[in-house]
Amino acid sequence: MATWDSLIRFQAPGGKEYWASLPLETAPATGLSVQGYSTIEGLEAGTGGVDVTVEKLLAPVPVTGIPIICVGLNYRNHANEASLPIPATPPMWYKPATSLAEPDSDVEFPLQAQKAFPDFEGELTIVLRNTIKNITPAQVSENILGYTIGNDLTARHYQRSCGGQYTYAKGFDRFAPLGPRLVHPRHISPDAKGKITTRVNGRTVQDSPFDFIFAVDELVSFLSQGTTVPRGTAILTGTPAGVGWFQTPKTELRDGDVVEIEVQPIGVLRTRVVYEK
Amino acid sequence: MATWDSLIRFQAPGGKEYWASLPLETAPATGLSVQGYSTIEGLEAGTGGVDVTVEKLLAPVPVTGIPIICVGLNYRNHANEASLPIPATPPMWYKPATSLAEPDSDVEFPLQAQKAFPDFEGELTIVLRNTIKNITPAQVSENILGYTIGNDLTARHYQRSCGGQYTYAKGFDRFAPLGPRLVHPRHISPDAKGKITTRVNGRTVQDSPFDFIFAVDELVSFLSQGTTVPRGTAILTGTPAGVGWFQTPKTELRDGDVVEIEVQPIGVLRTRVVYEK
Repeated sequence: MATWDSLIRFQAPGGKEYWASLPLETAPATGLSVQGYSTIEGLEAGTGGVDVTVEKLLAPVPVTGIPIICVGLNYRNHANEASLPIPATPPMWYKPATSLAEPDSDVEFPLQAQKAFPDFEGELTIVLRNTIKNITPAQVSENILGYTIGNDLTARHYQRSCGGQYTYAKGFDRFAPLGPRLVHPRHISPDAKGKITTRVNGRTVQDSPFDFIFAVDELVSFLSQGTTVPRGTAILTGTPAGVGWFQTPKTELRDGDVVEIEVQPIGVLRTRVVYEK
Repeated sequence: MATWDSLIRFQAPGGKEYWASLPLETAPATGLSVQGYSTIEGLEAGTGGVDVTVEKLLAPVPVTGIPIICVGLNYRNHANEASLPIPATPPMWYKPATSLAEPDSDVEFPLQAQKAFPDFEGELTIVLRNTIKNITPAQVSENILGYTIGNDLTARHYQRSCGGQYTYAKGFDRFAPLGPRLVHPRHISPDAKGKITTRVNGRTVQDSPFDFIFAVDELVSFLSQGTTVPRGTAILTGTPAGVGWFQTPKTELRDGDVVEIEVQPIGVLRTRVVYEK
């Protein structure tokens, strides 16, 4: 089986979708010439590759059309800025399948979100290799396909007005950009040395080491208890301090703003905000 | 186009799945001999029906494998018993596709739920005929396929321990029994004269007129703003006063309990609790 360090999912000219292996030193980008495979399994088997050009990067998930899991209050520095107590078990909710969006893309903010303080949340994101249920923390790592970056876009006012339930605030179409690539778990230390940085129009607004209240193994095991979590599910692991709502003064995302979330060696997830007219 | 008053979805002997039209006077049940159709569209066109026997009732939704929407705090009498303020906009969250369960069935409660105060919530349930986005309240009724009954099964302790987010408490496998049939919207008055009753082992625990804070038209329009809601989505509209958590003394669901939720003319959604060993 061919080993890989990172994977991109993309459209080639004509619209066909492929996976390709990329060295960590090569930044995901349009215009690259690569060997494209229809599936990750094909890529790992090394069969059926074709010479193709990357025309458009896609979210690096092996299954689309399924909900995305979000985890909240998983950084102490964010719980502190929000003046919220550390929960006993992980807060979680789903974004619907329709919230998925590509890296390096425009995200149109619907009118319903524009009027409710649109905001960003940079998050390290797990992608599951297998369908899981009732797995132990020790079984988690073998079930992780890789890591990418997610932006848990949020219309803040609905977090409060919907009786404290976060789902509506975060479930708008294309409110979950993921990418730019999937990095093999051996290159990511989610519970130790890694860090995440978010910039809005070039200004650094989040800059934090991974500071997880619920470590990845514990978190994913918890999510699987009594619940079938499908292969390919993306799990956003929570955001650190620095979101717009807790800046002084509070700063919402405006039409044309560019949000860049960086986790190395994954790279930069770039999203341009476009206000729906 | 053939009109129908109510529809059941079921398995015939051999496992093939069908839809059939049932007069309101006929209670959904196994053993009925009916004309079965592969799709509701086929049934409405009156083409391709076959003589079949109902072996097992299924949840009456035209699309499976998609999340279910739940709405919270939508009855004043439940908001009162919970001492929670009336929210400005509807609290909502998703149950994953794997939470769907049939009427008249056993639901195995996982260990993770057994230890966290398992409870029932009887709810009138909307099923969408079409995929919707940005629809007005006036456009809602034409997009409703029918009404059924849902049980928003819940492991109460996680509602608090997961930082106040309800999703985990309610998303366990088979925690959304739906049925026993779909009744045409012309037979249901969700905002006026209807009522909902829940019994546990024959004892009435919920008995309330529909008392919605957010009426169906307003609710479904809100859910569709900026968000694509797929065809076939079931929307549980909230529960009235009387859940086990707010009884005196608090009474959780135990192994072998039978929960019956009644809304006429839909019928009775019956679920037997089985504790996973």
